[in-house]
Amino acid sequence: MANQQPPWTLPTRQTEEPVLKVYNSLTRSKTEFVPRNGNHVKWYNCGPTVYDASHMGHARNYVTQDILRRIMTDYFGYDVHFVMNITDIDDKIILRARQNFLVDKFRMETTAASPELITELRDAWRTYVQDKLSKGKGLPDGDKPVSGDEEKSWPRLVGLYDDKTWKQECSKRDEKFEMLFSAANRTLSAINTAEGLVKSGQTGQNVAHQLVDDARDILAVALDAKFKSTVTDPAVFRSLAAYWEDQFFKDMGRLRVRGPDTLTRVTEYVPEIVSFVEQIIKNGYGYEVDGSVYFDTNVFDKADGHNYAKLEPWSKDNRALLEEGEGSLSAKAGRRSGSDFALWKASKQGEPSWPSPWGPGRPGWHIECSVMASAIFGDNMDIHSGGSDLAFPHHDNEMAQSEAYHNCGSWVNYFIHTGHLHIEGLKMSKSLKNFITIDEILQKYTARQLRLAFLTQLWNTKVDFSESSMSGEVRSIETTFNNFFTIVKALVGQVEADPSQSDGQHHYSIPEVELTQAFYETQSSFRASLCDSFNTPEALVHLRDIVSRTNIYINSQGKNLNIGLVSNIARWVSNMLRMFGLGEGEKYELGWGQAGTEEGDVNREEVLMPYLRTLSSFRDGVRRLAMAKGDNALEDILVLCDNLRDTDLVPLGVALADQPDGKALVKLMSPSDLIKARDEKRALVDAKAAKKAAAAEAERFKRQQRLEKGRVPAEEMFKPPNVPEGTYSKWNEAGLPMLDGDGNELSKSGAKKVAKDWGVQKKLHEEFLAWQEEAQ
Amino acid sequence: MANQQPPWTLPTRQTEEPVLKVYNSLTRSKTEFVPRNGNHVKWYNCGPTVYDASHMGHARNYVTQDILRRIMTDYFGYDVHFVMNITDIDDKIILRARQNFLVDKFRMETTAASPELITELRDAWRTYVQDKLSKGKGLPDGDKPVSGDEEKSWPRLVGLYDDKTWKQECSKRDEKFEMLFSAANRTLSAINTAEGLVKSGQTGQNVAHQLVDDARDILAVALDAKFKSTVTDPAVFRSLAAYWEDQFFKDMGRLRVRGPDTLTRVTEYVPEIVSFVEQIIKNGYGYEVDGSVYFDTNVFDKADGHNYAKLEPWSKDNRALLEEGEGSLSAKAGRRSGSDFALWKASKQGEPSWPSPWGPGRPGWHIECSVMASAIFGDNMDIHSGGSDLAFPHHDNEMAQSEAYHNCGSWVNYFIHTGHLHIEGLKMSKSLKNFITIDEILQKYTARQLRLAFLTQLWNTKVDFSESSMSGEVRSIETTFNNFFTIVKALVGQVEADPSQSDGQHHYSIPEVELTQAFYETQSSFRASLCDSFNTPEALVHLRDIVSRTNIYINSQGKNLNIGLVSNIARWVSNMLRMFGLGEGEKYELGWGQAGTEEGDVNREEVLMPYLRTLSSFRDGVRRLAMAKGDNALEDILVLCDNLRDTDLVPLGVALADQPDGKALVKLMSPSDLIKARDEKRALVDAKAAKKAAAAEAERFKRQQRLEKGRVPAEEMFKPPNVPEGTYSKWNEAGLPMLDGDGNELSKSGAKKVAKDWGVQKKLHEEFLAWQEEAQ
Repeated sequence: MANQQPPWTLPTRQTEEPVLKVYNSLTRSKTEFVPRNGNHVKWYNCGPTVYDASHMGHARNYVTQDILRRIMTDYFGYDVHFVMNITDIDDKIILRARQNFLVDKFRMETTAASPELITELRDAWRTYVQDKLSKGKGLPDGDKPVSGDEEKSWPRLVGLYDDKTWKQECSKRDEKFEMLFSAANRTLSAINTAEGLVKSGQTGQNVAHQLVDDARDILAVALDAKFKSTVTDPAVFRSLAAYWEDQFFKDMGRLRVRGPDTLTRVTEYVPEIVSFVEQIIKNGYGYEVDGSVYFDTNVFDKADGHNYAKLEPWSKDNRALLEEGEGSLSAKAGRRSGSDFALWKASKQGEPSWPSPWGPGRPGWHIECSVMASAIFGDNMDIHSGGSDLAFPHHDNEMAQSEAYHNCGSWVNYFIHTGHLHIEGLKMSKSLKNFITIDEILQKYTARQLRLAFLTQLWNTKVDFSESSMSGEVRSIETTFNNFFTIVKALVGQVEADPSQSDGQHHYSIPEVELTQAFYETQSSFRASLCDSFNTPEALVHLRDIVSRTNIYINSQGKNLNIGLVSNIARWVSNMLRMFGLGEGEKYELGWGQAGTEEGDVNREEVLMPYLRTLSSFRDGVRRLAMAKGDNALEDILVLCDNLRDTDLVPLGVALADQPDGKALVKLMSPSDLIKARDEKRALVDAKAAKKAAAAEAERFKRQQRLEKGRVPAEEMFKPPNVPEGTYSKWNEAGLPMLDGDGNELSKSGAKKVAKDWGVQKKLHEEFLAWQEEAQ
Repeated sequence: MANQQPPWTLPTRQTEEPVLKVYNSLTRSKTEFVPRNGNHVKWYNCGPTVYDASHMGHARNYVTQDILRRIMTDYFGYDVHFVMNITDIDDKIILRARQNFLVDKFRMETTAASPELITELRDAWRTYVQDKLSKGKGLPDGDKPVSGDEEKSWPRLVGLYDDKTWKQECSKRDEKFEMLFSAANRTLSAINTAEGLVKSGQTGQNVAHQLVDDARDILAVALDAKFKSTVTDPAVFRSLAAYWEDQFFKDMGRLRVRGPDTLTRVTEYVPEIVSFVEQIIKNGYGYEVDGSVYFDTNVFDKADGHNYAKLEPWSKDNRALLEEGEGSLSAKAGRRSGSDFALWKASKQGEPSWPSPWGPGRPGWHIECSVMASAIFGDNMDIHSGGSDLAFPHHDNEMAQSEAYHNCGSWVNYFIHTGHLHIEGLKMSKSLKNFITIDEILQKYTARQLRLAFLTQLWNTKVDFSESSMSGEVRSIETTFNNFFTIVKALVGQVEADPSQSDGQHHYSIPEVELTQAFYETQSSFRASLCDSFNTPEALVHLRDIVSRTNIYINSQGKNLNIGLVSNIARWVSNMLRMFGLGEGEKYELGWGQAGTEEGDVNREEVLMPYLRTLSSFRDGVRRLAMAKGDNALEDILVLCDNLRDTDLVPLGVALADQPDGKALVKLMSPSDLIKARDEKRALVDAKAAKKAAAAEAERFKRQQRLEKGRVPAEEMFKPPNVPEGTYSKWNEAGLPMLDGDGNELSKSGAKKVAKDWGVQKKLHEEFLAWQEEAQ
C-alpha cells in the first residue's frame, strides 16, 4: 500500500466553459453550434455574380465572412471546408456582355458623325424615355417627355426645377429613377451638341465617337433590342465573366480575404444541373413550360416534412423580391403559381444555351448553389452563408430545391447572413453617388483599416461606413495597437541589448499578479465574446482594455517592469489580431506587421538584400567594363544600366545610388516615395534642360541676327539699297562715302563715324562669309 | 402560422468527439484532461541548471515540451501560461564556478615550470587517485595505485590490460569511473612529460601552462580543497550561470523552441523562499539543524490529506536517488530521517549565501520550484512537466513542500514527464563518448530533422537517437513532404501562369469525392491521435498517408486534376507541420519553408521573384547587346554574365537557364541542390576536357614520333649509322642499296622492300623538313 500511488481525482471545473452560439437565420436567434461530424464544418458561401467591379458591399460581405471563417478555423480550431461558387452565367451577365459587345461593334463601325447618326440616337433616346421614364414610370407629372418637342418638356435640363425640388421629386420615385434620368439627360445633351457640330460641318470620327461614348447607356438598350439575336458566340459571355472573376479575386487578395477551399463555377456544372432538375421533376416538385422548368412551391410546401421559405415565410408573396430573383430575361407566363421559380430557363437567340431534355437553355439562378453544394457536401451542410439580401428568395429557393432533390428535412443546419452596408447612413447605390469600388476605397484606407471598421460592428447587423468613424474610432484603435507594440518592442529591445541591467530581483509582485489576473480574465472574456455569436466589437474592446491596463502597468512600474509579462500579453494580443486577419507574421510574433495593404513583410530586407547586392554588383561590373572600353558601341549598355536604376527598380522600391568608386549603394525604400523622388528629380532635370534650351535658342537667334547684319560687304554698306538713294553722292574704292547726298564733304565727326561703322561691318561680313563657307 | 419559421432542432452529432487524454505520471495512465478554469492552462516546466553546454538530452526534453505546448495552444486552442525556471544556484554551479576561478587564477600566477610545480601536481594526482579511485572506489583489485612507485601499479598506462579487459573492468564499476580514471591517466602522463622537460632545462611558461591545462580536472579538485573558502565574490557564481543561461536560450532558439511565457530565476526569489520555508516550519513540516532546514517527510506522510512521494512511492527509500537529490555540498548529518531533504542549506565559506533566520545560507534544490510556481500560480496548477529523471525525488519533494505550505491536497493536477534519450541504444554520457552538444548536432542535422526525429516517437517513452534512423526514416519523411509541396506548388504555378487552360469542366467527381472523404478522415484521425495523449508518431503517419493518397490522385488524374482540392490538402498538411514547429510561415500558406534552421521564409518566392526577373532581364539585355556587337572587347561582359549565373546566383538558390531566345528562365531552388548540380556539371565538363587533352597529347606524341622517324633523309637511311656497318656494301646515287654486306646482289624481293621503305622514308623526311622549316 505504501508503495502504491495515492488515488487521483479528475479536477473540478471552477467555471462553466462558454459554448459557441451562432445567430441562425433559420431561428432568428442565437443557437448552440453543433457540427454533425466531430470537428468538421461543411460551409458553403454564396459567391459573387461576376459582371462588374467589386464594391464596398462586396467588401463588407466577403471580409466579414473571412473574419467568421478565421475565428472558426484559427481560434476555435474547427476543420472547416469552405466552398464558394462563382455565378458566371446570369441575366445580368448576359445583358451586360451583349450590350458591351454591340456598342463596341457600333462604335468601331461608326467612322463619321452624320445627320443619320443623330437621328438614330434621338430615336433611341425617345424610346428609352418612353419605356423607362414616361408618366407612371417615374417622370414628374405634367411633363410630356415624348412629344417631338422633347427638349422643352425635359424638366431638369431646361431648368424647370431647382436642385432641391428635383431631389424631392426623385425621392418620390424608386432609387433607380435618378440614374436612368441622368443617363437620359446626359445623352440628350450630347445629341444636341453633336447636332450643332455636324451642322457646322464637323463630321469627323472623333465627334461621332464622343457622341457614342456619352450616349452609351441608351445606345446599348437600343442596339440590344435590335440586334441581340445576332450575338451567338459563347465567348462574348464567358470572357466578361472571366475578366470580372479575376478582378474579384485580385480585390479579395488585397483585402486579405482567404481564397475558398473549393471554388465552383456554374458554367462547369451544367450537366449536373440538368440531372438535378430531372430528379426534382421525377420527385414531383418540378414542371416544364415552353422549354423552361419551374419549381412547384405549393406542392412542396404542402408535402410532409417540407416547408417552403423557411427563412422568410412572410416574404412568400413578395412580388418584387420574387421578380427580381427571376432576372430580367425570364419568361413571365406559364407558371402555376406566382411564387414558382425557374429551375431551367429556355434560352432565346442572343442568350447562351446548353442542351437539355427541354431544349436549349441555361440554369436558373438558385439551382446552381443547390447542385454545387450537393456535389461537394451531399444532403447536409453545417453552415450556409451569404449576404442578408439573398435570404429570400435565393436561399429559401435553394433549400426547397435541395430538400426536394434529396428528399431530406434540413439541408442546411445553420444559415448565417451578413448585414447590409450603408455609406454615411444611406444605402449604397450608383444613383446616390455614394457607390465606392474596392479599388477606390483601398486608395484611401488600408485593408487593415477596412477590416477593423467591420470588426467594430456586429457581423449580422447593418454596418454604417462613415468617414468620421474611419478617421475617428478606427484610426484610434489602430493607433492604440501600434503604439502599444512599438512601446513593448522598444522595452524588449532594451533588455536584449543589455541583459546585465537586470537587478537580480524578480518582478512578480502584486502589480504583476493583478495584471496576470486581468490578462486571464481578458482571455476568458474574449473567448466568451466570440462564443456569443462572434461578437467581434466586444472582443476588440477586451483587447483594447488589456492594452490600456498594460500601458498603465508599464507607466507605473518604471525600472521594476516585468518585461516578460508585458511581452507575453503583447504577443497574445498580436495573435488575436492576426487571427482576425488584421496582421501578418507567424504565430507568437510580437506586433501585427506593417500598416500597408500589400506590404507587411517585416523580413523583406533580410530576404532581399543578398539578391539585390548581387544584382547591383553585376550591374557595377557591366558599367565599369562598358565605361573602361570607351567604345561608342557600348553606350547602349550604359543606357540599360540607367534604365535599370531609374525605371525598373524604382517601382520595386529599390534605390541604386551610383558612387564615384563604381559600386552603387543599394537601398530598400517605399516604392511610392521612390517614384515621387525620381519624378521630382526628372522634373527638375527637365526644367533645367528647358531653361538651357531657351538660353541656347536666344543665343542662336542673336547670332543669326548678327550674321544677317554681316550679309552686306562693308564696301556696299553705304550704297543703295543699303542706304536710301541720295544719302551719299561719292565713295572711295573701299566704298567709304566721301560726299553726302548734296555733294558736300562729310563733317569730320561724320567721316569718323562712317569709318568706324565700316570697320565693324567689315568684321561682321567676314564672319558671315566664314559661316557661309562652313555651311556649304 | 404560415408566416412563422418552422421549428428547428439542434443537429445530432453523428460521431462522438474524442476528448484529450494525457498520460499523467500521478496515475501512470492516460486520464482525461480537464483544466480548472475554462480554457486556461497553468503549466510549470522544470528548466535547466545552467553550468555547462546544452546537450542532446536537453534537446529531447525541451523540444518535446515545446511540441506538447504547441499542440495545446496552436491545435487545441488553450490559453496556456507556460512558466519555466532557471536554476542558477546549485551545488554543481558552485563547484564548477569555484574550480574554474581557482584554476584560472593558478594558471595566471604560474610563470614557469619548476620542480616544485611538478611535485605539487604529483601530490594532487596522488590525493585524487586515493580519494576517487582507490580500492573499493573502483580501481581494479590487486593494484596499489597510491604507493610511491605509482607508475608501475597504474594498470592502463603501463599496459597491464588490453582494451577488452579494460572495458570489462570498467563495466563492473559505476559510469563515472572511466571518466575519472581517464582524467588521472591523462594527468599522470602530462606530469611525466613535464618532468622530463624541466630536467632538460625547459622551464618556460608554455611548458607550465601545458601541464596546468592537461591536469586541469585534478588540479581543480586539489585547489578547491585548499582554497575554496577564499572565494567570496558572488559574481564568480553569478557570471557562470548567466553565461550558460544565455547559451541555453541561444540553443533553444536554434531548435525553434518558443521561450517561456514567464521565466523565473532562483537567485531572484531568495526572500520569497525564506518566507516559504518559515511557513512550512510554522505548519509543522520543517525543522532546523545547524543553520540548515529540512523537510520532515514522516510527519508529512502521516498527516491527514497528505501523501509523500505521490509520483514514486516505491522510491521513498532509494538512498542513491535521495543523496543525488541533495547535492554534493549538503550537510549529511542531523536529519530525523534518511528521506528528509534540505529546504535551506547553511552555506560554508566559499559558498554563496543569503541572510535567513537560520544564518547565512542558500535554498535547497526542490524548494525553488515550489516557491516560484506558487508565486505565479498559487495553490494549484494544471500541468507540471519535466524530464522523467526528475520525478523522484525532485518533483515528489516539490509537491510535498507546496502541499505542506498551502495546506492543500493536490498542488499539481497533471504531471507529465518526457522520456529519456539514448544514443545508438546507450544512455548518453561523457564516459561513453556519445555525449553530443546541441551545437554539435546542429552542425549535422537541421532543427527540423531533430524535431521530426522526436515527433516520430512518443513523448513519454525512451527515444533512441541513431544515425540510421536520422538518415533513414527521418530523411524519408522530410523528403516525402518536400516532394509533395514542390509538386503541388508547381501545379498551382502552372494554373496561375495560364488560367485559360481550364477546360470549362468542373473536376469534382468520384475520385475527388473519395479524396475529400479521405481528407476528412485524416483530419479526424489526426485529431484522435493528438487526443490520445499527444500521439505524434501516429499523427505523422496520418499526414504521410494523406500525402501519399494525394500523390496517387495527382498521378492518376492527368489534366483532369482538381488543383483546388490538392492545394487545400497541401495547405492543411503545411498548417499541421507548422503547428508542430517544423516549419515557418503564416497559417494557410502552402509548404513548410526551407529545410535550414534559420531560413524558412515560405514567401521567399513571392517576395523575390519580381526582383529576380528584373535582374535576369537586365542581364539578358546586356548579353544580347554584347553578343550582337560581336566585339572582342565585349567578351568580358559575357564572362560576367556567366559568372553571375554560375558563381553568384548559385549559392543564393537562383538557377538561370539561358534560352535560345535570349531570355533566361529564372528558378528559385535549394541552394545546396543547385551547388551540387553545378559542381557535377563542372566535373563532367572537366572530365571531358581532360579526356580531350589526353587525346590531343597522344596525337601530339604520335606525330612527334613520326617526325623523329623522318629526321634521316631516305638517301642516308640504308647507310651507317642508320643500319649496322656491313649491312650493305654498295648504294646507288639515291642511297638505295645495290649489294648486301657480302657483295651479293639483293634478292628481287629484298630490292623491292628497300625501295618501298625508301619511298616511305622520303615522304617522312619531307614532312620533317617542312616541320623544321615551320618551327623556325
